[in-house]
Amino acid sequence: MYKAPVEEIAFTLKHVAGLNDVLNLGTFGELGEDLVDAILSEAGRFATEEVAPLGEVGDRQGSRLVNGSVKTPDGWPDLYRGWIAGGWNGLTAPEAFGGQNLPHMLHVAAMEMWNSGSMAFALGPTLTMGAVEALEKHGTDELKAAFLPKMVSGEWMGTMNLTEPHAGSDLGALKTRAERRADGTYRIYGQKIFITWGEHDFTDNIVHLVLARLPDAPPGTKGISLFLVPKFLVNEDGSLGARNDLFCHGLEHKLGIHGSPTCTMIYGDGKFGEERGAIGYLVGEQNRGLACMFTMMNNARLAVGMQGVAIAEAATQKAIAYARERTQGLAPGWSGDGMSPIIEHPDVARMLLTMRALTQGARAIAYACAHAVDMTHAAKGDEARHWQERSSLLTPIAKSFATDVGVDVASMGIQVHGGMGFIEETGAARYLRDARIAPIYEGTNGIQAIDLVTRKLPLSRGAQVHGFIDELRQVATAVRASNNEGFGQTAACLDAAIAALGEATDWLQTALGDGRQVDALAGATAYQRLFGLTLTGVYLAKGALADTGDGKQLSRIALCRFAAENLLAETAALRDSVVNGAASLAAARAILG
Amino acid sequence: MYKAPVEEIAFTLKHVAGLNDVLNLGTFGELGEDLVDAILSEAGRFATEEVAPLGEVGDRQGSRLVNGSVKTPDGWPDLYRGWIAGGWNGLTAPEAFGGQNLPHMLHVAAMEMWNSGSMAFALGPTLTMGAVEALEKHGTDELKAAFLPKMVSGEWMGTMNLTEPHAGSDLGALKTRAERRADGTYRIYGQKIFITWGEHDFTDNIVHLVLARLPDAPPGTKGISLFLVPKFLVNEDGSLGARNDLFCHGLEHKLGIHGSPTCTMIYGDGKFGEERGAIGYLVGEQNRGLACMFTMMNNARLAVGMQGVAIAEAATQKAIAYARERTQGLAPGWSGDGMSPIIEHPDVARMLLTMRALTQGARAIAYACAHAVDMTHAAKGDEARHWQERSSLLTPIAKSFATDVGVDVASMGIQVHGGMGFIEETGAARYLRDARIAPIYEGTNGIQAIDLVTRKLPLSRGAQVHGFIDELRQVATAVRASNNEGFGQTAACLDAAIAALGEATDWLQTALGDGRQVDALAGATAYQRLFGLTLTGVYLAKGALADTGDGKQLSRIALCRFAAENLLAETAALRDSVVNGAASLAAARAILG
Repeated sequence: MYKAPVEEIAFTLKHVAGLNDVLNLGTFGELGEDLVDAILSEAGRFATEEVAPLGEVGDRQGSRLVNGSVKTPDGWPDLYRGWIAGGWNGLTAPEAFGGQNLPHMLHVAAMEMWNSGSMAFALGPTLTMGAVEALEKHGTDELKAAFLPKMVSGEWMGTMNLTEPHAGSDLGALKTRAERRADGTYRIYGQKIFITWGEHDFTDNIVHLVLARLPDAPPGTKGISLFLVPKFLVNEDGSLGARNDLFCHGLEHKLGIHGSPTCTMIYGDGKFGEERGAIGYLVGEQNRGLACMFTMMNNARLAVGMQGVAIAEAATQKAIAYARERTQGLAPGWSGDGMSPIIEHPDVARMLLTMRALTQGARAIAYACAHAVDMTHAAKGDEARHWQERSSLLTPIAKSFATDVGVDVASMGIQVHGGMGFIEETGAARYLRDARIAPIYEGTNGIQAIDLVTRKLPLSRGAQVHGFIDELRQVATAVRASNNEGFGQTAACLDAAIAALGEATDWLQTALGDGRQVDALAGATAYQRLFGLTLTGVYLAKGALADTGDGKQLSRIALCRFAAENLLAETAALRDSVVNGAASLAAARAILG
Repeated sequence: MYKAPVEEIAFTLKHVAGLNDVLNLGTFGELGEDLVDAILSEAGRFATEEVAPLGEVGDRQGSRLVNGSVKTPDGWPDLYRGWIAGGWNGLTAPEAFGGQNLPHMLHVAAMEMWNSGSMAFALGPTLTMGAVEALEKHGTDELKAAFLPKMVSGEWMGTMNLTEPHAGSDLGALKTRAERRADGTYRIYGQKIFITWGEHDFTDNIVHLVLARLPDAPPGTKGISLFLVPKFLVNEDGSLGARNDLFCHGLEHKLGIHGSPTCTMIYGDGKFGEERGAIGYLVGEQNRGLACMFTMMNNARLAVGMQGVAIAEAATQKAIAYARERTQGLAPGWSGDGMSPIIEHPDVARMLLTMRALTQGARAIAYACAHAVDMTHAAKGDEARHWQERSSLLTPIAKSFATDVGVDVASMGIQVHGGMGFIEETGAARYLRDARIAPIYEGTNGIQAIDLVTRKLPLSRGAQVHGFIDELRQVATAVRASNNEGFGQTAACLDAAIAALGEATDWLQTALGDGRQVDALAGATAYQRLFGLTLTGVYLAKGALADTGDGKQLSRIALCRFAAENLLAETAALRDSVVNGAASLAAARAILG
C-alpha cells in the first residue's frame, strides 16, 4: 500500500528545487521550514490513510450515470468532505476568498501525494483549482463574490469545458454558441465532450467554465469567449436557485481513472428552465477566452506532470515491496535459505533503480517548475521576466517527461510483478491504465514538444535556454570538484548529456532561424526527452551533493551514479535523432499515404 | 479494422527471412511459392474476415465461469469450429496424425495474422499446438494414438499446466504430486494457476499436460515429471468416458486478453470420480518432465514473440487509418482546405513511422528465427547444429524484442489517437492491454535476457554469435555498395550499431569467462534490446536492397533510412549501459534494502 514519501518530497523541495528562495521572498509571511514540514506531513497522512485506501474501489466501481446523475464510488463523497474539511482545496488560493496563499511548490508536492493515492479522485479538485485561478484573474467582482468563496472552500466544484468532437488540440474549430441577452447575461448552446468531473454527487453546485463563440465573433481562436455557467443559478443571498439548462448526457468508458466521471455535457437543449439556453456570465473580455484559459494552462500542465510523478512513485513503491517479498530462483551470490527474493536478481534491481531514478528526476523537474512559478509571482521587472520565462521553459518538459515517466514506470512495475502484474486485483495494472491518459490531456506531449521548440527556445532570443544550460554545467562541475569516488563517471556522463542538449538546442535554433519549421518539429519530441533526461541526471546530482546529515547522502550518490551511467547515454542518441533525423522523416512521410 | 498484410508478410518471408532456402530443402514436397502465397492469402482472409470482427466482443464480454463451466464470448465457439474446419490447427503437425507438415515459417506467419485479429482467441490453439509437439516428441505410441489425431484436427484442445502460486519462473519449487498406481497410471493432486484456456466450451474434451512430482523424486527441477491428464477419460474405442477428477476453480480478472480464460485448475480434489485423484499418464521419462517441456519451449517463446508482432501490426494499421482521417490544426506546409489530417504533423508522422519500422523489424527477427527452426529440422550434422544454435540464439531476442515492441507500439497507437485513444470503444487501448502480458509469460523478458547472455553467447565457444554478427556486416556493406542516395546515412548507422553489438558481445563474453556473472547479468536486458534494434536495422536494409519489381523498393529504402537515422543511435547508449553500467548497479543495489 502507498505510503507518502514525505521526507523525500521535503528533501527535493528544499535541496534540489530551491524552496528556501521562495520562503525568503517575504510574500508568504511567517511560513518557514517547520510549517512546511507540518503541512507536508499532514497532506501525506491524508493521502496515505484516507485517499489511497479508496483508490481501488474507485477503479473497480467507477463513476456511473444513474437517471441523469453521476454516482461516484462508495466512500468517495465522504472522502471529499474530509478533504475539504482539512482545508486542502484552498492551499494556494488568495486569502481574500478564504484561501491560504501558500507557495505553489507546496501545492504541487501535496497534489503529488493525493494523486498517488488516487489520480481519479485528485483530478476533480485539480480542475476546481484551475477554475478558481481563471475566475480570480479574469472574473468581475460580482462573479468572484458570488462564486469564489464557495469554490475555494470546496463547497462547490469547478470544471473546464473546452473540447468538442471536432475541436481538441485545435480549439479554433469549436462550435458552441453564446447569445447575448439584454440583462447582460448570455445563453449557451452546444455540446462539450471529455469534461472531467462535469457531473457528480460531491457538491450541491458545479461551476462550469465554458468556451463558446459569440454570433459576431471572428473565426478561429480569436473568436472564442469564456463563460461561467453554473449547474444551479445562484440567488442574491447566495442560496441555490433554478436548475440551469445543462446536463450530463453520458459518461465515457475509459482505459483508466474510472472513478473520475468523464462527461458529455449538453448546454441549452431545453431540458431545464423556461427558455431554452444555459444561462452564462462572461469571464474576461469578449473573444479573449483562449487567453483567459492560457493564464491557467501552464499550471494545469504542471498539475498533469505531477500526476505522472505521482503514479510513478506509487508504482515504484508497490514494485519494490513485491520484489522484496516474492521469492523465485537463486540469484547469483545469494546465500540465504531457499529461493532468493527477486529483488536480488540483477535485472529486477535494474528495473527498480530505473523506476526510482526516473521518478525522482521527474519530481525534481516538476518542483523546479513550481519554484519558477512562485518566483515569478514575487519578483519584479527583469527578474520577474526571467522566472516567468524559466517556468514557461520548464512547463512542457515537466508535463511531457513526467507523464512519459509515469507510463514507463507503471509498465515496468507490472513487469516486476511477473504474471501477478497482469491480474487486476494486484493493483499494478491500474497504475498503467491511469497513467496512460496523462501524456494525452492538457495538450498531448507532441504539442508540448511543439510549444517547447517553437515558443520556448526563442525566449529572450535564445538566452533563457542557454542561461539554463549554463546553470546545469555548474552542477556537473560541482560533481567533479567533489572528488567523491562514489559518483563514478557521473561528471563525465553529465558533461556529455549537457553537451548533447546544447548541440541539439543550437541546431534547433538555427533551423527555426532559417525558417526550417518542419525540420525543427521533426525532432521536437526527441529534444523534449533529451532535455528531461539531462535534467534528471543534473537534479539527482544536485540532491546527491547536498550533505544534510540525514544519513542518506551515500544512497543519493549511488542512485545518481546509476542514472548517469545507465540512463544518460540515451541523450547522445536523442541528439543524433534531432540533428540527423529530419531529412529521413521528410523522405519517409510519403509512405504513410 | 485490421486487414492482414499478406503481401508484406510474404515479402518478409521470401526476401528477408530466407523462405526459399526452406522450400528448397526437399522436406516439404511440392510446396512452392505459389502454394505458400495461396495459404497465406487464405489465412489472411480468415484473420481479416472471421477473427478480427470478433476480437472486440471477446474483449468486452470476456470468458466467464458459470456453474463450473467456462462460457466463451458470443460467436467464439463457432469461430473456432470454422477455424479447425479450415485445417489451420494442424499446419505443422506430422502427416501421420492428420497434420500438414508445413514449414514453421508459414506457421508463424499465419499465427501473426490470427493474433492480430484476436490475441485472446489465437492463444488457445497456440497452447494446443505446444501440447501436440510435446506429446508427439515424448509420448508413448498408445498415448499418441489415443490423443494426437483429435488434438491435431482440433476436435480436442490441449493445455500446459506449469505454474503454481510459488512456482512461476522457478518451476523447481512446484508441489503438485503424482502417485503411481499398479495399472501404470498415476493419480495427480494439486493446484495450478494461470492455466491459459484450462476450461472452455470450444471442445468436448481438453487434454491437460501437467508437471508434477513423484513421491521419490529428487528435489528441485530434476524431480519433475510430465503427465497427460484429460478432462474426460477416453474409452478403448475412442469415445469419451468418465469425467476425470479435475476442475476449473476460478478465472483471473486480467488487464487484457479477456476472451482467453486464465484458469485456476484443481487436480485430485475428489469432486469427480470414485477414487480421489486425477488420472494421468506419464509423458516421457520420470523426472525428465522439464526436459520434455523445454523441447517445445523455444517454439512457444517464438509464438509469444509473434503475438508482439501481431499487436504491433494491428495497432499501427489502426493508428495510420485514424491519422489519415482525423483533422486538427494546420501542419506546416499544409495547403489543403480546412484543418490538416493529423498525419501531416511531423510528430505524428514520426510516431507512425517508428511504429511501422519497429513492427517490420520485429517481424523479420521472428521469421528469421522460424527459418532457423525449419533449417534445423532438415539439416544434418554440423549444419543442423549451426541452425539449431542460430534458432537458440534468436529465440530470446524474438520473444523479448517483439513483445516489448508490441507494448511500445500499442502505447504509441493510443497516443496517436489523442483523447479518443483512452476511450475503450475506440479499440486502441485494447491493444495495449492485450500486449502487456507478452513480455511476461513464457519466461519474462528478463529471463530471456539471462538465457541470451549466459546460455546463447557461449554457443560454439562464442563462434555462433560472432558468425552471425559477421553476416550482419555484409548487409551494411551491401547498403554502402548500392550507392543508392535514398539510403542516406544508413550504412554508417548500421556499421555503428553492429560495432556496438560486437563490443557489447565481447565485453559480456569476457565477463562470463572471468566468472563475473553479476556484471554480465546487470547488462543483459540492455544487450538484448541492442541486439533486437541492430537486427531491425539490418533486416529493414536487407528488404530494402531486394529489387522485386513490386514498386515498393523506394518506400522500403525510405523506411529503412528513417529507422537507421532515428532509432539505431540508441544502440550506442545500450552498449554503454552494458559496458559501464554494472558497477553502478552493484553500488546502488543497497538502496533497495
